Amino acid sequence: MAEPTAHPPTTTVREAVLALCRATGMTTVFGNPGSTELRMFRDWPEDFRYVLGLHESTAVAMAAGHALGTGRAALVSLHSAGGVGHSLGAVFNAYRDRVPVVIIAGQQSRALLPLRPFLGADEPARFPRPYVKFSRQPERAADVPAALAEAHRVAMSHPRGPVFLSVPEDDWDRPAEPVAPRTVHGGYTADPAALTGLARALDASARPALVVGPGVDDERAVRQVTELAERLRAAVWISPLSGRSGFDERHPLFQGFLPPVADQLAERLAAHDVVVALGAPLFTYHVHSEAPPLADGTELYHLDCDPAQAAWLPVGTSIVTTLGPALRALTDLVRPADRAAPPPRPAPGPRLATSAEEISPSW
Amino acid sequence: MAEPTAHPPTTTVREAVLALCRATGMTTVFGNPGSTELRMFRDWPEDFRYVLGLHESTAVAMAAGHALGTGRAALVSLHSAGGVGHSLGAVFNAYRDRVPVVIIAGQQSRALLPLRPFLGADEPARFPRPYVKFSRQPERAADVPAALAEAHRVAMSHPRGPVFLSVPEDDWDRPAEPVAPRTVHGGYTADPAALTGLARALDASARPALVVGPGVDDERAVRQVTELAERLRAAVWISPLSGRSGFDERHPLFQGFLPPVADQLAERLAAHDVVVALGAPLFTYHVHSEAPPLADGTELYHLDCDPAQAAWLPVGTSIVTTLGPALRALTDLVRPADRAAPPPRPAPGPRLATSAEEISPSW
Amino acid sequence: MAEPTAHPPTTTVREAVLALCRATGMTTVFGNPGSTELRMFRDWPEDFRYVLGLHESTAVAMAAGHALGTGRAALVSLHSAGGVGHSLGAVFNAYRDRVPVVIIAGQQSRALLPLRPFLGADEPARFPRPYVKFSRQPERAADVPAALAEAHRVAMSHPRGPVFLSVPEDDWDRPAEPVAPRTVHGGYTADPAALTGLARALDASARPALVVGPGVDDERAVRQVTELAERLRAAVWISPLSGRSGFDERHPLFQGFLPPVADQLAERLAAHDVVVALGAPLFTYHVHSEAPPLADGTELYHLDCDPAQAAWLPVGTSIVTTLGPALRALTDLVRPADRAAPPPRPAPGPRLATSAEEISPSW
Amino acid sequence: MAEPTAHPPTTTVREAVLALCRATGMTTVFGNPGSTELRMFRDWPEDFRYVLGLHESTAVAMAAGHALGTGRAALVSLHSAGGVGHSLGAVFNAYRDRVPVVIIAGQQSRALLPLRPFLGADEPARFPRPYVKFSRQPERAADVPAALAEAHRVAMSHPRGPVFLSVPEDDWDRPAEPVAPRTVHGGYTADPAALTGLARALDASARPALVVGPGVDDERAVRQVTELAERLRAAVWISPLSGRSGFDERHPLFQGFLPPVADQLAERLAAHDVVVALGAPLFTYHVHSEAPPLADGTELYHLDCDPAQAAWLPVGTSIVTTLGPALRALTDLVRPADRAAPPPRPAPGPRLATSAEEISPSW
Repeated sequence: MAEPTAHPPTTTVREAVLALCRATGMTTVFGNPGSTELRMFRDWPEDFRYVLGLHESTAVAMAAGHALGTGRAALVSLHSAGGVGHSLGAVFNAYRDRVPVVIIAGQQSRALLPLRPFLGADEPARFPRPYVKFSRQPERAADVPAALAEAHRVAMSHPRGPVFLSVPEDDWDRPAEPVAPRTVHGGYTADPAALTGLARALDASARPALVVGPGVDDERAVRQVTELAERLRAAVWISPLSGRSGFDERHPLFQGFLPPVADQLAERLAAHDVVVALGAPLFTYHVHSEAPPLADGTELYHLDCDPAQAAWLPVGTSIVTTLGPALRALTDLVRPADRAAPPPRPAPGPRLATSAEEISPSW
Repeated sequence: MAEPTAHPPTTTVREAVLALCRATGMTTVFGNPGSTELRMFRDWPEDFRYVLGLHESTAVAMAAGHALGTGRAALVSLHSAGGVGHSLGAVFNAYRDRVPVVIIAGQQSRALLPLRPFLGADEPARFPRPYVKFSRQPERAADVPAALAEAHRVAMSHPRGPVFLSVPEDDWDRPAEPVAPRTVHGGYTADPAALTGLARALDASARPALVVGPGVDDERAVRQVTELAERLRAAVWISPLSGRSGFDERHPLFQGFLPPVADQLAERLAAHDVVVALGAPLFTYHVHSEAPPLADGTELYHLDCDPAQAAWLPVGTSIVTTLGPALRALTDLVRPADRAAPPPRPAPGPRLATSAEEISPSW
Repeated sequence: MAEPTAHPPTTTVREAVLALCRATGMTTVFGNPGSTELRMFRDWPEDFRYVLGLHESTAVAMAAGHALGTGRAALVSLHSAGGVGHSLGAVFNAYRDRVPVVIIAGQQSRALLPLRPFLGADEPARFPRPYVKFSRQPERAADVPAALAEAHRVAMSHPRGPVFLSVPEDDWDRPAEPVAPRTVHGGYTADPAALTGLARALDASARPALVVGPGVDDERAVRQVTELAERLRAAVWISPLSGRSGFDERHPLFQGFLPPVADQLAERLAAHDVVVALGAPLFTYHVHSEAPPLADGTELYHLDCDPAQAAWLPVGTSIVTTLGPALRALTDLVRPADRAAPPPRPAPGPRLATSAEEISPSW
Repeated sequence: MAEPTAHPPTTTVREAVLALCRATGMTTVFGNPGSTELRMFRDWPEDFRYVLGLHESTAVAMAAGHALGTGRAALVSLHSAGGVGHSLGAVFNAYRDRVPVVIIAGQQSRALLPLRPFLGADEPARFPRPYVKFSRQPERAADVPAALAEAHRVAMSHPRGPVFLSVPEDDWDRPAEPVAPRTVHGGYTADPAALTGLARALDASARPALVVGPGVDDERAVRQVTELAERLRAAVWISPLSGRSGFDERHPLFQGFLPPVADQLAERLAAHDVVVALGAPLFTYHVHSEAPPLADGTELYHLDCDPAQAAWLPVGTSIVTTLGPALRALTDLVRPADRAAPPPRPAPGPRLATSAEEISPSW
């Protein structure tokens, strides 16, 4: 059973972003540059191509064409609020025509923003909405690479479309963790290939677990979850702070309620080699702890009908689907388990009570 | 072939809303009332129940519980911006727990809004976002019933959740058209029952048509569309103002580009008894005309992976699904057609050109 | 004593807007046109000039230059959300450089907006914020001319800057009342010329009244108001729904609390020929009534430190100033009155109580 | 002539906020607490008082009453988005009644925000708008104290009203600089006492300077600026990136255009012991440098009609007023100077050109 450990950042925002662009095939960048993007483009790598648009409209329009031709999202670099505004007609078209364009807009240095600097964007997380599927300026430099990864996943979820990220110019040289690659199966249709992969992982698992979120009850899939859990002899947890029941708490497979704190949650799930989250964002935290979301030996699958939640999960393989058909198909695909059922749920002891009180007196 | 005709309103906003509530099972209303809601509740019908919450939080929380228990959306009536604010904790919980709560907030009279009246909401379409899936104040009184119908469909799409509608108090007595009932199959999974129903309608059709939108190319489903069209001998149109091709324009079944004007669009499709829109909002208008969206003899089905677009269509049966699996399944379900193929596309004549120019010099 | 009467509209939105443009010197219009603006420009009057910009940026930049040269606000016509976006760099500059540019953006027909039409703006009241001082799409066609008048007053208040109005294309031919001309003295500095004019009006008044709003207590000006009222022997009212006291309710000049309903408020003030509102928006209504804000014989002056409130008042002469210095100067400027003091306040009778109950059970 | 130096932070956000609260008289805190505020209240100082409201509405309402009674802004601590929502009715009242209430809302840890944590606010800078005069979540922990200082100044500018600051819970222990106290004279009316103080400082100055911003031309005050400059024999600069002229560039007192970079700007002004900024935000930067805004020996006065700009200046004494009357009064108040005029402007040399090019290729 692996210990959760915190990985110190070994790279910069700029390096992590470039690595992500390589991993997602966004090495052609369309843009119309200004001063706030300079640090992004310094030491421009040989394997990247920069295509200059003489106006922001043409940069976005070219990127949209590139996305249509390649079937991959295309990256655009624009300059602050004004530059993004100038491209709005092309952004609107990409939005209506479902074209995955990932826009990074330069923003002034965080240090300058309190003084309303020249070339600053005043409401950077709102601006090109409602004509983009996602817009954000991360609250910390270190969060830029992961935010770009999420934006890319949103752009590539059907219906595809443009997304937006505002990056303060002093973020590029700050330390950041590299972004782990993720898979999102976006078929919506209980994709047989994706489910077969998951079934094989469950068959090979020594100690599987299901995590039940609000989506299970929302989609009336409690019975199917129970059938799958029994066939797998899997442990069953309720996701952190879920307000809806989705599993019988007296069932012998029931293990309890996952805590909304990263290290505690990872510790609870560290006993499991395969975890399947059902209709749950899973990583709903309430108190911060410096810990990775899962222990090294825990593999996560995530089934949800909400592509936004599939996009914002930081780790694991997501399958976008409604739960009923997926659970029925999955139950047919897995072998009846001959593994031992998990030990019965420990009665909530004083440590848990103390911990819950520590975490928050308010919920 | 039916003539498109405009139906003059025969009812009031209040009557149309009450009829919609009956049709959707929302006859229990939870609320905490104020003066701006008085016209909504006047002559309260016998078959409706009003459950008073002594605070807005409890009204929303009770409604959420009712929705969980019944499996239907629950209606809440709150009072202007302040009243909605007071309920925000309960709205947040409903949002996170995917509970379909439909909130109608009283707003001041339209006539008063320019003067910042007491009890007015200043940004009524924004306020409870981002904790609701939909928020809107219709631009005309006559649009209130249809907006509530759309809000209800959004609330009931998975993942379910709260929605919000702001209604100026002088809207309730204005004329409005009754809202036509609609079905949305929200399974996402090429729902076999829904597709079977569509297949039976296509088999029975004399002159079917497919309308191809941006989603077809977005989901790489051009080949499947072609196979289905050929099996059906169906006419194929491109949806209004789509910027992406999704069908070979030289194919003998291709009929042209639908115009973005209600009467012209309805006229083009009036020859067809069954129309299947694929990845297209279909009713993307550019110029207003007083005409119903479809002629009386035209039945619409709509396949799209975007539940928001499924919700905002004003007529027809929507099936939420990605296109590839749905088209493959549908092609298997329909009988090969022995009907005559549609006549070849008329060459674009002077009238069309003139009309396009009339419509808009700008696109 | 004049009777309040409702004036039925005698003109269209377009005619009222053109008249307002003439009155404010905005007869040169800079623009880049699209289809949603066609009705605005039909039968373009001989005394107006249209200056075409080949791009929206240049239209706004030319308008800004014109405003700098003339010292008057300049009018720009742009096309929907995309067109406004394209001009954003020039709008940003005008905002930073305090240049009064009045932007009217074409919006799709109200009738089409529920269906997300082509060329529609989805959040029209928000879009160019925070780079404009004012943005709005009126809730009714009839409110367009007054909203444009307010926008113009906001643009011309120091610090000047750009403002924005979204106008649905089917609003232009609807009926609307002409906009009454108004004066706003924007000096902030207890402008002696403006105060002298007011002093002359008060000296000539037979039955003056002061209306005390929250600003009086906010600026600690209660004593100065009392001195002025006594010197004038003026009636003193509290403004509708003010939550702060600003005058001694036992003072013999005190007349009571103005009701938040147009006809009732106008009736209370109809006895007065000159009314001076102090730190009060005055027309804070709660219940709509079809009545003009003031009776024909009542002349309104408005002293407030908030230029936004000065701009949104529909009638009267505003003087932007803090109250203390203005009241001290005004008290020196007016002659001690030899007119009769107003009759003592009638004890609140049953009619008032009934009326308050009728108006709102909630405040 | 003092050298600009960067002061390293010597305190935490929490300590700097508490010091600011003491300096502004906000040592009574009204609130309804939750977990995200715990770090703010740890080791609660003896000289602070916490008044518990059993509901958020009462906390804000009590604070509003306290502000009315004391004439000072009152501090409220609320809990995340839900807690702020619950108080909205009381916030609305404070807004309409011009009551200065400073709301700090707890926000989740910055580290958690990418994952949509429990108790997080999703659009923290927007939420209680438009019912507050100011809302912000600083982009860095270190900016929290200065943002609170700005919020307090906004709340106390007439018309007073509520303001809002969202503070992530992990910001409280981060390092931050203490906030320098500032004076804002909010009289709007060329306040004679404030101007007399400025006149005495100018009379005693050895090398005064005027900085001309867009407001000078906006308010047609170029002639008055020239008269004042000549009477003072003061150097005259144009503020950074101003797009409007406000002084004759051929005038012997003209010194040039201030650069939009902190260290360069401070260096240009370091020769001056008294600087008067006119209609200019002055600290409009384009490139960040680690330098204090002004050298230690430079004292700043700021005259502007915009209370928002008066509030956001980080240092100096602001006098809110239109420029014309203030400049006329000031010219009368100062003694004709017998000091030497500043040396004529150096011709723009290669170093300046190089520097401008370094700063930004884009303007």
